[in-house]
Amino acid sequence: MEKSRLEAFSDGVFAVAITLLALDLGVAGPGHGALARQLGDRWPSYAAYAVSFFIIGITWVNHHALFKSLAMTDRLLMFLNLTLLLFIVAVPFGTATMAAYLRSGGADAHLAAALYAAILEGMALSFSAIFVWSTRAEERRHEPLPAGGARAAIVRFTIGSLVYLVAAAVAFVSAPATLVIIALMAVYYMFEQTPTGARVPG
Amino acid sequence: MEKSRLEAFSDGVFAVAITLLALDLGVAGPGHGALARQLGDRWPSYAAYAVSFFIIGITWVNHHALFKSLAMTDRLLMFLNLTLLLFIVAVPFGTATMAAYLRSGGADAHLAAALYAAILEGMALSFSAIFVWSTRAEERRHEPLPAGGARAAIVRFTIGSLVYLVAAAVAFVSAPATLVIIALMAVYYMFEQTPTGARVPG
Amino acid sequence: MEKSRLEAFSDGVFAVAITLLALDLGVAGPGHGALARQLGDRWPSYAAYAVSFFIIGITWVNHHALFKSLAMTDRLLMFLNLTLLLFIVAVPFGTATMAAYLRSGGADAHLAAALYAAILEGMALSFSAIFVWSTRAEERRHEPLPAGGARAAIVRFTIGSLVYLVAAAVAFVSAPATLVIIALMAVYYMFEQTPTGARVPG
Amino acid sequence: MEKSRLEAFSDGVFAVAITLLALDLGVAGPGHGALARQLGDRWPSYAAYAVSFFIIGITWVNHHALFKSLAMTDRLLMFLNLTLLLFIVAVPFGTATMAAYLRSGGADAHLAAALYAAILEGMALSFSAIFVWSTRAEERRHEPLPAGGARAAIVRFTIGSLVYLVAAAVAFVSAPATLVIIALMAVYYMFEQTPTGARVPG
Repeated sequence: MEKSRLEAFSDGVFAVAITLLALDLGVAGPGHGALARQLGDRWPSYAAYAVSFFIIGITWVNHHALFKSLAMTDRLLMFLNLTLLLFIVAVPFGTATMAAYLRSGGADAHLAAALYAAILEGMALSFSAIFVWSTRAEERRHEPLPAGGARAAIVRFTIGSLVYLVAAAVAFVSAPATLVIIALMAVYYMFEQTPTGARVPG
Repeated sequence: MEKSRLEAFSDGVFAVAITLLALDLGVAGPGHGALARQLGDRWPSYAAYAVSFFIIGITWVNHHALFKSLAMTDRLLMFLNLTLLLFIVAVPFGTATMAAYLRSGGADAHLAAALYAAILEGMALSFSAIFVWSTRAEERRHEPLPAGGARAAIVRFTIGSLVYLVAAAVAFVSAPATLVIIALMAVYYMFEQTPTGARVPG
Repeated sequence: MEKSRLEAFSDGVFAVAITLLALDLGVAGPGHGALARQLGDRWPSYAAYAVSFFIIGITWVNHHALFKSLAMTDRLLMFLNLTLLLFIVAVPFGTATMAAYLRSGGADAHLAAALYAAILEGMALSFSAIFVWSTRAEERRHEPLPAGGARAAIVRFTIGSLVYLVAAAVAFVSAPATLVIIALMAVYYMFEQTPTGARVPG
Repeated sequence: MEKSRLEAFSDGVFAVAITLLALDLGVAGPGHGALARQLGDRWPSYAAYAVSFFIIGITWVNHHALFKSLAMTDRLLMFLNLTLLLFIVAVPFGTATMAAYLRSGGADAHLAAALYAAILEGMALSFSAIFVWSTRAEERRHEPLPAGGARAAIVRFTIGSLVYLVAAAVAFVSAPATLVIIALMAVYYMFEQTPTGARVPG
């Protein structure tokens, strides 16, 4: 069971990264205005928390499904997986930065939202790279993908990556629109599963 | 063993969230008054730490028992579980906010305590949803619940959820009373077990 | 394998708590005096970091050995284990507080060192309680302890707990002496193993 | 499977430490100058983040490979492993300190970079010690290393440790050069595998 520790390590990183999102929820506390207003002013943090939580969570679910289909690991896979984790771990930073600038509402909100979308773009591309790796040799998967399955999946991954690019571009027009596009992306991924070459219950 | 990674990921999130509770224990340090007084002033943080620690710990124990009884997972379960984790991860934020406002003692203590109870309400409802999911099809559990067991459990979950609602309402009368109600809830759950359809030692 | 998730959750909490110790290592940064002096002034943080790191690490090793010998778990064990984790998670707080007051050198250093020793006392007592639980019924261990083994172990645990009490008392005379006593305790535990009823390589 | 919990605990510490690196990514936020300039000024943090992320990640990969080859554990191995983790956990501190002083650019940048290299030196020496432990008795490995393999590996570890020493010395001439040397080291380790006594796919 070569891949079990790789999964365990990845699970740990996903779990810590998703939990660190909550560090940005806190208000300034007593003496900084009414609590209701403080909470209200921080709505971008709460919206961004929920979106990023599901983005990381769904990526974990898809990571789980993809790794389940793998029959082996190698040095390159470990490197690709580390690159994916590098972006996962940066998501709380991107989320907090975007939320802070959405609150302040200045011109920098555009750049902050683009930065957030760019981190997710990096995540999506790394994930795609792991998938592509899994299709490059037969012994890498327990079962080959159905005919056309790999091509269809790669088309879908490409579209996914393009959506994050679009979200990054839209950021320069409207930062909240970026958050909305990414939230819709999360909803889409919640229902769309990474192909695993076999019917898998979960 | 489809569900083992789901459990591992959840364990990780529970473990990180329960540990982050401790970030709120620290005092301001030298130069901010006698240490004994600083520690004394922070009693709400220490009380809230202990309560939230056992709330998360007991929820983990019940999560453990419930997942032990599951025979399969699916996409919906993963989504329900993510929603549960979303609230678990927010508990340190709710705890720290309540403790800060209990200390300052102003009118906002009511809102802060209600926010804390609301986060626990979300946690309780998500947990109930996972339980309900487990009862909706026979193949989802290793053993069916005993006759009337599911209904009895759902009644109990409903009462549990109502207690958090009451705690949230009571917050607007007395914030410390909310903490007391939730502490009693923790004690109750410590002795009351999620039904698992079989005698389970732990 | 009833206890594997309990171990996994505990491992997670130990791992996060031990890592959070490092949050107290950071210096104030540029503009707060020469870095060499900043690092030198923080020697109590570095000493306390090393001591607490090995205290938590050794407690984890002993936790590992003790749980290896257990043949079952129950609700009470989970509660005792949660209590142990409650103190483990508080160690970074106790460590940082003691280090801050050792640095400032005022009268509060005594109280801060006593607080640190008290947290370790709570940890030692909870650990002893788990051990006592394991000896109270034959079915709780894979192999019974050798004749006199349980009594000898309890005597040793009692001495261990007394040492932390002494360390707490000594704190009111000399705070650094408390840290020295606790460091010696860590060295002692590194060589002394929790009895497990069988020769265990590690 | 004596070593599985030791691996699980180590995986947890690696995962938390690697994720805590991201705590240093954050900018000061609105009101502290243009976001683009804030991000640009923090380039040492982003470079150091990437380097330390891969250093910890690769050390984890090599830890994984080394432990896979172990046939047993003992008290000494646990202590050596704790020492390795002590340095791993200090990496985010070393990274953030170096990045802060590289940004400020004063004379202390030299000391900060040397501190960073010294932490990595400690990590490399602890890792070597675990490897040496594994070669000191036949029963410690599943398969003996090939003739000359242990000696070759130790030579390589020694060179690795020397590189970190050189990086620490170079720090007093040029702090950025230290970061470059360590980045090259990470790239080297990415392609060079700890010998495991057998062909291992990953």
